[in-house]
Amino acid sequence: MPRIIECIPNFSEGRRLEIIRAIADEISSVVSAKILDIHSDIDHNRSVITYICDPEHVVESGFRAYRKAAELIDMTKHEGVHPRIGACDVFPMVPLESVTVDEAIQLANELGRRVGTELQIPVYLYESSAKSEERKNLANIRRGQYEELTKTIAYDTSKTPDFGPAQMNLKAGATAIGVRGPLIAFNVFLDSQDKSIAKKIANAISESKGGFKFVKSLGFEIKSKNQVQVSMNFTDYRKTPLHRVFETIKSEADRYGVNIASSEIVGLIPFDAAADIVNFYLRLTGFKKEKVIEERLGEALRSSGVLEDKSKPY
Amino acid sequence: MPRIIECIPNFSEGRRLEIIRAIADEISSVVSAKILDIHSDIDHNRSVITYICDPEHVVESGFRAYRKAAELIDMTKHEGVHPRIGACDVFPMVPLESVTVDEAIQLANELGRRVGTELQIPVYLYESSAKSEERKNLANIRRGQYEELTKTIAYDTSKTPDFGPAQMNLKAGATAIGVRGPLIAFNVFLDSQDKSIAKKIANAISESKGGFKFVKSLGFEIKSKNQVQVSMNFTDYRKTPLHRVFETIKSEADRYGVNIASSEIVGLIPFDAAADIVNFYLRLTGFKKEKVIEERLGEALRSSGVLEDKSKPY
Repeated sequence: MPRIIECIPNFSEGRRLEIIRAIADEISSVVSAKILDIHSDIDHNRSVITYICDPEHVVESGFRAYRKAAELIDMTKHEGVHPRIGACDVFPMVPLESVTVDEAIQLANELGRRVGTELQIPVYLYESSAKSEERKNLANIRRGQYEELTKTIAYDTSKTPDFGPAQMNLKAGATAIGVRGPLIAFNVFLDSQDKSIAKKIANAISESKGGFKFVKSLGFEIKSKNQVQVSMNFTDYRKTPLHRVFETIKSEADRYGVNIASSEIVGLIPFDAAADIVNFYLRLTGFKKEKVIEERLGEALRSSGVLEDKSKPY
Repeated sequence: MPRIIECIPNFSEGRRLEIIRAIADEISSVVSAKILDIHSDIDHNRSVITYICDPEHVVESGFRAYRKAAELIDMTKHEGVHPRIGACDVFPMVPLESVTVDEAIQLANELGRRVGTELQIPVYLYESSAKSEERKNLANIRRGQYEELTKTIAYDTSKTPDFGPAQMNLKAGATAIGVRGPLIAFNVFLDSQDKSIAKKIANAISESKGGFKFVKSLGFEIKSKNQVQVSMNFTDYRKTPLHRVFETIKSEADRYGVNIASSEIVGLIPFDAAADIVNFYLRLTGFKKEKVIEERLGEALRSSGVLEDKSKPY
């Protein structure tokens, strides 16, 4: 098996797609980096690029993404409903195959050092790679966002970055780099224009407000759809599955007389997260990857080239 | 791409698993034949083996399965709730990759001829390979089952087999061989011991009784679970999706004050049938194979060996 790190950088641009395309091209220009998904959101004015890379080249691919984002995105002009501190706002790294968390943390440090030194962007390390308890939680780093951080970074020692200058890079902003486990980003749209309802439901399901242990959630106004949105991160979908939270949102929305209009998955999800949903709603017990014909077919074709082997006589 | 036929033979034995294992081994002994799934059911006293094979070897693999089933299963002693006429009761063949329906029909005829002649088993061709309108429908061939057919086969000309003797093979029974499209077998268990409720619901959803166009369904008593079962075949899951029928069963069961206890998929299902379920219940629109991380990972690793290519400099 090759060694693989998954990177899911989030950029503060979701409207001018040529900019996101240019950043993606920059990532792809590095050997072994392979783009899996690009998700752009007009209202968040934010894009998520999902790519995989071998550990040897991940720092270079990340650095190129930062450099291109700093060149093409101007934080002094950025508006959008999602919290952010920089052009490349957050750079999560997930060790997927034959890479340890410690190795990934070392790579996050290398990337942070290059971004801080060569691009003069303040860098905060979060989650597994955080250098303090406080910074494990991305929300703490991003509190006050770009605008507030610009004012406090030089004076508030709790805001001193882990790499780069203790002064805001006005055009590129600041950034958070973190090693974390796989995460599912799932958004539910409500047939309402009342943001307070989305916020109340987001609170009801968020761990920090007494909701589900592995859910972080925010309520947003989605002007392009005339709807509001409950936006979620699932940090452990095995322990807090999507369907359970979805049903809670449905029941809370019902209390306000509001319907769920639709939902979306941002980026990719693991197969068993989807299988969980099928199992729950159809009351199945055994649905898993091995029950999917394409899966078994691919496996059978890969295994010992059995369909090519003409040597075995019948 | 290699050429592939999928075979899903059903055998009248679901309790003595060593017999099913022996038949599966017989199939596997043929070059290119690869078992994907084995599903045995105690109450139906029936097993389904799903395997793939290249067209050149499919007749031999099928013949060996018939021969072993005729050796190990005795229809004079068979009991089970599912309708059946023989030891290898039905042998569906699905052209999956680079095989035409016409080619598959020719292979079904070859297999039928060998089973009829060499094993002296009456063979009926059904669905796409049927030689008359009446025999397109498997239910017509199986009507009256093994016991009734034993009495009528020699006298009722409408029961004359397409291959083999017009006389029951008492130990091995008769069989149906057919070329058909992919099918999903899905069973729902009801928390009730009243078989009439399962039968009423099966009627409500069956095309033949005014239900859904692409559903065939029967109601069974499942003594091992103290429950009853609505057993279904979906002949076109794109036009009649599982979730719609499941919700109808739920609402009909509710009318009788009965709950759905669980459900099961027999054999394998295509990925997009599962994606449909996820899309429906979570009100997603875009969930598809490309949103699954393992899928994209495998694809990225296969495509042009990009993770191995060390020649491209950064």
